This record gives sequence, structure tokens and C-alpha cells, in this order.
Amino acid sequence: MIVETRYTRFESLSLDCGATIQPVDVAYETYGTLNPARSNAILILHALSGDAHAAGIPRESGKPGWWDNMIGPGKAFDTDKYFVICSNVLGGCRGTTGPSSIHPATGAPYAMTFPGITIADMVRLQKMLVDSLGIQRLLSLSGGSMGGMQTLQWAVAYPEAVVSAIPIATTARHSAQQIAFDEVGRQAIMADPDWNQGNYYDRNPPARGLSVARMVGHITYMSDESMREKFGRRLRDKDKFGFDFSVDFEVESYLRYRGTQFVARFDANSYLYITKALDYFDLAEGYGSLTEAFRNTPTRFLVISFTSDWLYPSYQSLEIVKALRGLNRDVAYCELASNYGHDAFLVDVGEQTEVVRGFLENTYRAIA
Amino acid sequence: MIVETRYTRFESLSLDCGATIQPVDVAYETYGTLNPARSNAILILHALSGDAHAAGIPRESGKPGWWDNMIGPGKAFDTDKYFVICSNVLGGCRGTTGPSSIHPATGAPYAMTFPGITIADMVRLQKMLVDSLGIQRLLSLSGGSMGGMQTLQWAVAYPEAVVSAIPIATTARHSAQQIAFDEVGRQAIMADPDWNQGNYYDRNPPARGLSVARMVGHITYMSDESMREKFGRRLRDKDKFGFDFSVDFEVESYLRYRGTQFVARFDANSYLYITKALDYFDLAEGYGSLTEAFRNTPTRFLVISFTSDWLYPSYQSLEIVKALRGLNRDVAYCELASNYGHDAFLVDVGEQTEVVRGFLENTYRAIA
Repeated sequence: MIVETRYTRFESLSLDCGATIQPVDVAYETYGTLNPARSNAILILHALSGDAHAAGIPRESGKPGWWDNMIGPGKAFDTDKYFVICSNVLGGCRGTTGPSSIHPATGAPYAMTFPGITIADMVRLQKMLVDSLGIQRLLSLSGGSMGGMQTLQWAVAYPEAVVSAIPIATTARHSAQQIAFDEVGRQAIMADPDWNQGNYYDRNPPARGLSVARMVGHITYMSDESMREKFGRRLRDKDKFGFDFSVDFEVESYLRYRGTQFVARFDANSYLYITKALDYFDLAEGYGSLTEAFRNTPTRFLVISFTSDWLYPSYQSLEIVKALRGLNRDVAYCELASNYGHDAFLVDVGEQTEVVRGFLENTYRAIA
Repeated sequence: MIVETRYTRFESLSLDCGATIQPVDVAYETYGTLNPARSNAILILHALSGDAHAAGIPRESGKPGWWDNMIGPGKAFDTDKYFVICSNVLGGCRGTTGPSSIHPATGAPYAMTFPGITIADMVRLQKMLVDSLGIQRLLSLSGGSMGGMQTLQWAVAYPEAVVSAIPIATTARHSAQQIAFDEVGRQAIMADPDWNQGNYYDRNPPARGLSVARMVGHITYMSDESMREKFGRRLRDKDKFGFDFSVDFEVESYLRYRGTQFVARFDANSYLYITKALDYFDLAEGYGSLTEAFRNTPTRFLVISFTSDWLYPSYQSLEIVKALRGLNRDVAYCELASNYGHDAFLVDVGEQTEVVRGFLENTYRAIA
């Protein structure tokens, strides 16, 4: 499946904070074919560090998309049947307007003059993209982690446009612990002198700070058990006696590698803005309760969580399920057994594929 | 209970790495009175950031010790009955020789020329201190976290000197996840330009890096639930609309405060050396198995863990208990219910007091 990222521009976007961004560019990819009834479209939402390239192989890079094991011919999101869309989020750094984009009024990057954004703002921009593609109703939406929050926000903000939704490994609101981990990452970035109050686009980026932030993230994405299976207490250099402060254990080597690798593809200011959007996310806000937030939502739900995910534990998915069941909504809940922690939605997709495939087939049949 | 820190000097200490430190100073405090039979001594071992001041009130600072709720007249470690000792660990920065101490050969702080140290090295120095106090056998030893590792190491290294041991919220070996969290802290410190390869004693210390390291630590010391109860999603300034990157949530404010506060009392190089000692800790090393490590240990054990401690989860305490039970040793295990996470051994001491008191009374009676 050869794919390419496309770009579209909107004149302006109004934000929750009252500010307006103009213009706004959106990077997106599509896979499969929209049917004549325009009833087979599925929107995929990415997590903190994801991008529009969810599936397939671009000619230039040759690198498969971040959910290529879930999206494609015969896969869970079957591109022989469905038309799949994925866009880079607002505030990102992979083609959609964010802090690293040029502010037209100044000719310089927004940096920290970029306005504060929310998950609802990201979703508002996605709605404009979906409208521009001529799609009034989405057969389904899905994403894990922050992608799951966008999925939930869509169902609440645009109930008539969302036939079904599959939030995975996510929450209806960030907890104090989730906020705390994000805050450590932000502090690591802002403590790096190269961050320079966000003004680093003409010089070295805050590589050390962003790398530490990513290392913290990676620990929370894995489980105690998956780390033990992958690394145990193995030493990098078995012949070495005693310890030093370069690299002793394999797990240290892995984390440093992932940290350094991340710096090459991600913007530190985007990391700050997107984690703040995560921390501010609270679906019930303005409704009084999660139940009230869902009251006008006819959407069918499939909620998925993973046993070893301690970053977005199952109890947070169950809060969503309980609110929907209290309204007698059509909601299925699957807690899948996996040792992979939060990463399970990206890497341990066997059972996830089965439940998503069945749910989509039922949903598609019901509206056909 | 008015207390004061005392200091003693030893000519030299041989380390696991083959190096020798000379001289070595040890800071320690004692509480209660050693009986004529010298049979009522209890050694308390501190955690990563602790010090010799475990209990009572020093005249100068007026600040109670870090385990003052456990040590004192009528408390779990009852100073009306027992003679309690606590010393600052080797590699520390609170009176015992560590990286910030002056290297006699150079007249300058050791900094990163300080040799690599292990938990066994810390224990070897404590043995010298206990010997110097004229005590051949300890009625008991106890400590939480790294204090628990020292407790275990004592029982294995000096079996005849340890009548009983109470390791709390600890492990017989650091897991990949525990190593990973420590490595993030070290990377944060070493990424701070003020760290300057460890040479900062005549200038500004790496305050930002050490502060981030401490923030990561604090998240792991609390539980998801205790953070929710303490902070929830409360905003620092309720009237403020939108977000900024100074402080939005109370949990952010708390973490920054604890991070900053830590910088004033702790040395960054000590943090590097002590976390490495933690990561290298593996009680079974050199024995083939935990069971073999304990084979020559007649020590009675009381092993304590806490339900919500996810940094040193109960399964790690159970590994210790299983190895001892396999040898038919006298071992009691208590998993105490607490929402306080790893911090429980410091703050949620009601039940802990009861089980420790009973265990000590039984042990004292048995040898009297």
C-alpha cells in the first residue's frame, strides 16, 4: 500500500481559549476508497507523538505507518471495505500547524506565542477536514491514548456525525498521576538552557531535555513485566566489572536510544503544548458529569483497555463504560490480556484486531 | 527527645570495586541506652535521600527525624527498651564520606573520582561502626526501600551478627523498571550543564537536573490514588482561564516545590552514586539464587510490603519470603493495606507499628 501525506489549508480556526489561528494547515493521509454513499469513512486519531502517517509505505521514506498492523487490506480497519483517514493533530510538528509553524504576522515561528490548545480544538479542526472531504457521518473513529480522548470528544461534540467510536487505552480525564508524569517531561524540557523560552528554531533544540522527557514517557508506556522480559538486569557489556555512568544496563541503553531518536523527529514546544492539552482534558467539564456529557450521544461504543496498562488503567475505561451503560447506550467493553502495558494498543494487536473487526462489521451492517 | 549527630572516622574502607577509601567519616545518631549485656541494639537503615537523623529533635534545627513516628519512647522502635543507631550511608552527603567530601590526596572534593560503591560497601562500613560501638550482635535491623536492601545485605553478609531483620517495602534486586526510573533521574542531572561532569562544588550545582530527578522520584513514591486524594485535578488558581506553562495544577506546584526543596539539602553526585548502588543491588549475585544467599542466615525475618506500593511491589517482598520459607526459616510476612504507595512506610505507620512492636518483643524475649 503506497501512501502519501496530503495537505489542506483552512482560513481560520477558533480555539477554546478565545484566540484564532489563521491560516491552519492540516497534514493527512487516506487509505482505501470512499463509497458512493460516503458511509464507510473511519477517522483514526493519533497519540502524543504520532502523525498523519498511520499506515502503508510512503515512496520517499519507505517507513510503515504507526498503526500499519491495524490498518490495511484485510486488517482490523480493512481498507478493502473502509475509507480510512488520519491527520496530524493541531499543535503538532508533522505538517499540521503548531508552535514550529511560521506565524504569518511575524514571519517567524510561533514558538511560545502559539495559543493554548485543547483536545476539543484538535477535534474541531478534524471536523473541518472531514467536512472538506464531503463526509457528513463517520462510520467510526478510533485511537489509543490521546487518540482515544479525541475519539470521546468527537462523540460528545458531534454526536450526529459519529455512528460508532472505539476509544482504546484511554481516559475521560487526566488523573493527578498522569498530569505529574507530563509535568516532569515539561520541566525537563524547560530546564534545558537550549530551550531558551521556546526560541530555538534558528539554533540547537533542547535535545537533552526532550530526550529525558521521552525517556520518562517510555517507562510509562511499558509494563514492569514487559521491561523485565525485554531487558531484565542484563548488562550492556558483560565483561565490564563495576559500574560507570555511561551505560551499564541494557534498559539504560534502550531508553537513551529512544530519547535521542525522538529528538530528531519531534519538536519540544509541540511536546509542551500537546501534553498540556492532555492534562486539561476532562470530558465532563461543562456538563457536570460524564453521564451528562454523553446524554445526547447516540454513538455505539467499543471501549478497549489492557490488563498491564498502568498509565491508562482499566478503571478509567470502566468509568466511561459505566456512564454509557447508565444511559442504556450500546457499549461493549473489552479488557484485553497483555503484558505490553500502554504500548499494547500499538504492538499486541491480535485480539484487538478480532474485536475491532467484528464491531466494525456489525456497525456497517446496521447502517447499510 | 533531644538528639545530636556524632561523627567517627575509620582509617580505610575496602570496596567491592577493589578501591580503598581513606579515611572514611561516618555520621550517626543513637537513641536510648545500650543495656549491660549489649543485647538491645537495633540498627536503622535509611533510604535514598535519608540521613543519620532518624528520630528526635536536634537543638539547632529543631526538625524531627525522618522516622520520628517509628522511633522513640513507646513507639515501634521503643527507645525505653532498645538502643537505636542510624548512620548516613557511604556515598551520601550528610556527614558520611561521599563524592562531595574532600579527597585528602588532592585537597578538592572527590566529585566523579569517587569510586563506585555498592549496597554491600555501605553495609561493610556500618559493620565497622557497630563494632566500634562495642556491639557484636544486633537485636534487629530495619529500613524501608534502600534501607530494606541494606537490611537484607546485613543478614547475608554477617549472619551471626543479626538476630532479626525487618526489611520493608523493598526488593532483593532492582528490576528493569526500577533501573529505568533511576536512569531518567541520572540523565536529568547529567543533562544539566551546571553538572559540569560533576565539578560544581565551587559554583552553582545542577539544580534544575536534580530537581527533575526528584520530581520523577516523588511520583514513584506516591500512588495513583494518594495523588488523586491529595491533588485531584485541582487548579492552583481557580480564577485563571486557560493554561500556561508556569503552574496550572496543584500537583505541578507540589512537585516543583519538592524538587526545589531537595536541591537545598542533597548533592547531585551522591544521587548518581547511590542510585547506581541501588541498580546494581542483587542479593543473589555470587550465590546463584536467593535461596543460596540466605542459606547460612539464622536471622528471624519480618517482611513488610504495602498494597499500593508500585515502585517496590509486594511480589518482590514475596520473592524474599519464598526463598526464606524454602529454607524453613523463621519468617513472617505482612502486606499492609495502604493508599500511600511506597511512602507508606514513612507516613502510614499505624499497623506497621503494631507488627514491628510485636516482632521485636518476641525476638527480645527469645534471646533474653
